[in-house]
Amino acid sequence: MRQVVLGLGISIDGYIARLDGSVDFLFMPKDYSMAPFFKRVDTAVMGRKTYEIAKSMGGGVDGKMQNYVMSRSLPPGKREGVTFTAESPLDLVDRLRKLEGKDIWMMGGGELARDFLRTDLIDELYLGIVPVLLGEGIPLFPSGFPQRDFTLLENKTYSQGLISLKYGRRRIAS
Amino acid sequence: MRQVVLGLGISIDGYIARLDGSVDFLFMPKDYSMAPFFKRVDTAVMGRKTYEIAKSMGGGVDGKMQNYVMSRSLPPGKREGVTFTAESPLDLVDRLRKLEGKDIWMMGGGELARDFLRTDLIDELYLGIVPVLLGEGIPLFPSGFPQRDFTLLENKTYSQGLISLKYGRRRIAS
Repeated sequence: MRQVVLGLGISIDGYIARLDGSVDFLFMPKDYSMAPFFKRVDTAVMGRKTYEIAKSMGGGVDGKMQNYVMSRSLPPGKREGVTFTAESPLDLVDRLRKLEGKDIWMMGGGELARDFLRTDLIDELYLGIVPVLLGEGIPLFPSGFPQRDFTLLENKTYSQGLISLKYGRRRIAS
Repeated sequence: MRQVVLGLGISIDGYIARLDGSVDFLFMPKDYSMAPFFKRVDTAVMGRKTYEIAKSMGGGVDGKMQNYVMSRSLPPGKREGVTFTAESPLDLVDRLRKLEGKDIWMMGGGELARDFLRTDLIDELYLGIVPVLLGEGIPLFPSGFPQRDFTLLENKTYSQGLISLKYGRRRIAS
């Protein structure tokens, strides 16, 4: 089954961005590569604010990736190289899982991550932690979802103090 | 100079305790030892709430450690094996640094950690991260302090998915 991976860079205190949305504190050391990650995903799902930040940073949208922007206020449909949808996280993931494809990258932001965690849709965490305390910002894990247990799959140290953590959701078989 | 080390176990989402103060989610794998840490510190500083939780858990107080409980409401003085003080973090740390001794363990909680970070009194972070998202709880790093940069000193993986991170404060010489 296609896995849903919540993958993001964060500060030690768990922020994905400053309050104004900027992510200048994130960095990519030379010995780190996102290529293995991009090899396993072919679909990206993000919230409207995250999409706007990505767009404003000129990042634009990877043409090889299927991009879904989840928004209840914007009209649904395909434009700007992405698909806008007003579906619930559960409905979207259910639908994507019925399609042939690789894993699904949940790009944030925090409010959408919380929605996904509430419905227990996150199968894996893939976190890059940069060595800074921001003191304030937009949290990756805003409070308000039930406890979710994980198994540590990988812990790697890169130069400039970046660490990369991979966790798999540990669900008790019922 | 005696270093001030903020050392605590936290969940992936940065909580030191559940909302009711319980820390049942923390664990100590067999291959992990706090002995090296306890060898380098001889003084513990904590907030009043953290002290009460420690006491209620029957943890009591290590006789070999000098323990300071910071409280503006409780009467200052030595009792119950600890020293209550109404000093500011800066005054207390200044005073302790003038005394001969090993490093100083800042045990939390989060509000006090924030006070220490505001005054830039934390020299080192020593974090154990357990593989769980709690979804809510008492944060180690409540927002409201200026950005503080760190250098990663150590990243170790232990059994059951515990990781141990050591960061040193990176201050730009002026």
